[in-house]
Amino acid sequence: MVPRRGPSRAAPGKPGVGAENHRESWLNHFATELHPPRTDPSAPDALARLVELVGPDLQACNRTIVARMDSPVALIPQVAAHIVAAGGKRLRPLLTLATARMCGYQGSRHIDLAACVEFIHTATLLHDDVVDESLLRRGLSSANATFGNKASVLVGDFLFARAFQLMVEDGSLSVLSILSRAAATIAEGEVSQLVIQNDLATSLDQYFEVIRGKTAALFSAACEVGAVVAGRPAPEQAAMAAFGMDLGIAFQLVDDALDYAADQSKLGKTVGDDFREGKITMPVLAAYHAGDAPAREFWVRTIEASSQGEGDLEHALDLIGRSDAIQTTLNHAATFTDRAKDALLAFPPSPMRDTLADVADYTVSRAS
Amino acid sequence: MVPRRGPSRAAPGKPGVGAENHRESWLNHFATELHPPRTDPSAPDALARLVELVGPDLQACNRTIVARMDSPVALIPQVAAHIVAAGGKRLRPLLTLATARMCGYQGSRHIDLAACVEFIHTATLLHDDVVDESLLRRGLSSANATFGNKASVLVGDFLFARAFQLMVEDGSLSVLSILSRAAATIAEGEVSQLVIQNDLATSLDQYFEVIRGKTAALFSAACEVGAVVAGRPAPEQAAMAAFGMDLGIAFQLVDDALDYAADQSKLGKTVGDDFREGKITMPVLAAYHAGDAPAREFWVRTIEASSQGEGDLEHALDLIGRSDAIQTTLNHAATFTDRAKDALLAFPPSPMRDTLADVADYTVSRAS
Repeated sequence: MVPRRGPSRAAPGKPGVGAENHRESWLNHFATELHPPRTDPSAPDALARLVELVGPDLQACNRTIVARMDSPVALIPQVAAHIVAAGGKRLRPLLTLATARMCGYQGSRHIDLAACVEFIHTATLLHDDVVDESLLRRGLSSANATFGNKASVLVGDFLFARAFQLMVEDGSLSVLSILSRAAATIAEGEVSQLVIQNDLATSLDQYFEVIRGKTAALFSAACEVGAVVAGRPAPEQAAMAAFGMDLGIAFQLVDDALDYAADQSKLGKTVGDDFREGKITMPVLAAYHAGDAPAREFWVRTIEASSQGEGDLEHALDLIGRSDAIQTTLNHAATFTDRAKDALLAFPPSPMRDTLADVADYTVSRAS
Repeated sequence: MVPRRGPSRAAPGKPGVGAENHRESWLNHFATELHPPRTDPSAPDALARLVELVGPDLQACNRTIVARMDSPVALIPQVAAHIVAAGGKRLRPLLTLATARMCGYQGSRHIDLAACVEFIHTATLLHDDVVDESLLRRGLSSANATFGNKASVLVGDFLFARAFQLMVEDGSLSVLSILSRAAATIAEGEVSQLVIQNDLATSLDQYFEVIRGKTAALFSAACEVGAVVAGRPAPEQAAMAAFGMDLGIAFQLVDDALDYAADQSKLGKTVGDDFREGKITMPVLAAYHAGDAPAREFWVRTIEASSQGEGDLEHALDLIGRSDAIQTTLNHAATFTDRAKDALLAFPPSPMRDTLADVADYTVSRAS
């Protein structure tokens, strides 16, 4: 067996009992962690510029997130804080905030809706980690490893429901339609991923269907909502949705490449997770189809038969490194990034538009 | 170890691959199973009369369920059909259908909304069975035992999202507000249940908070929606919500009693599931508090320390049988049933109102 590099799975104790007293301090701690917009000096320029452009909006969004993930049931904010505070890039809510402003929106509805987008994303992450049996999330012990699978499933359900409550408070049936459709599409993408797992006969079309669902649908919805709150006409709403969709596909392609190529310490994720799970991604498909007979045999044993031993991950990384699998994947990503940037041309030039285009470029450049 | 009586956990194979071809036949089979309203001659009179009163509505609702749980991802309708077709009593959607008609509603919006209620319930069941590691559901192998935990989590997410899509199509923000709040409350109840698990120091208040959330909130929402689509004034909407809440609490109390008292073959559930899971329910709390020192020691070992061996379930059933734990639980249930029936008095007499009152009585009488 390939040894797992993550922390050993903590036997989840009795969660949350006696924790009621600590709720206040948890939330305070979390609020402190969140309130300053993430202007990590090492963050890539484009993303840092986007954060700067929507600074007060992002702070307000973070306040909504903290306020609305609260519950009298203390374990809920604990689990939610664990994953929300672990500090992703807030890319999806940033997209809602930025697209709304780029579309000329002057109000504040986009703030709570960006929080909805983050709640849906967080709920998905919690369930993903249960499904993938992940031990690490952004370099830290995952919620399921810390609090157990049960808490992760149920708190994910809570955040999902809370996202819909926030949308209902906003009161736009268009927004509700976009985000409920996205939520169903995400689930379809996740189930499809489960179905193609371990199956090297998966076509590229099937693979794209999976990443469109599990990742790009929410990027797309996040951007479309920005145009909708701004009251832009249908073609511009569609352009925003297309921008998010292509950006999301590029993002997932790069993510899949990084799983076989990243510097683990830099990325905060365990390299080789996809390999160990027998996940079908473009690097694997490319290396498999380009491989000679022994290479194909290796992939069939390790991915299809899930029979992995000492040195297999290293051999997989070596096979992928010697093929053009990573480059093929990144080339595809670049194509989608270009399409995403084209979609932005439906809007007049502005610093926000330029920065969104740069963020699209960053999506691919982070892999190199 | 107490031997599990359910089927052994099927090692879930690769789900759904090659199943695309069978989708049609699955759905057809499922449609056939569902379309006749459930007029099982052995069904209790009150429920059968309710089914008869809303017959065409229930058939239409079942058609919506079949049509809207479909997806191009074949595994989704397979898993959904497994649990939806397993044939619960459709009690929650029946409540929406019946309360809408009792409130004088003449349209058809309540049909899709009843399907929403059933989808939310089904999503909760799928996630519950993962959380409880249940092997049986209504006497059949549970979805997680058949398809694996991963599929159950993700298809639950899909059904939940699909429920919101249906609500959005209906277009009532009031309904969306009621059901999204119920969904969040259900998740809070489930997490609370996880927190009090194994804890004999749980107060009766905490126990009621759990069952209000995990069960009664959806009963309440199902009934409130009936009054809302009928356009009844706020006090009548509140009376319907109160009826559902009290009925739901009574229902769960009786369910908790049955877990220590039922004839397994009759109930289609495994007696003693709650015991094995260390679930804190009123029968256990009542028996624990009424018990002598050796009895308390027994409950502490089996429920708090989760140390269970040969003969322990039998001893638990014996202790409960010799105490008044079941009667105490059923007395509480009867109190809530009476309150539920009182709430119905806000409405003029009608066959539907009388039958709903009888269904409330049946909720308790099914335990005797």
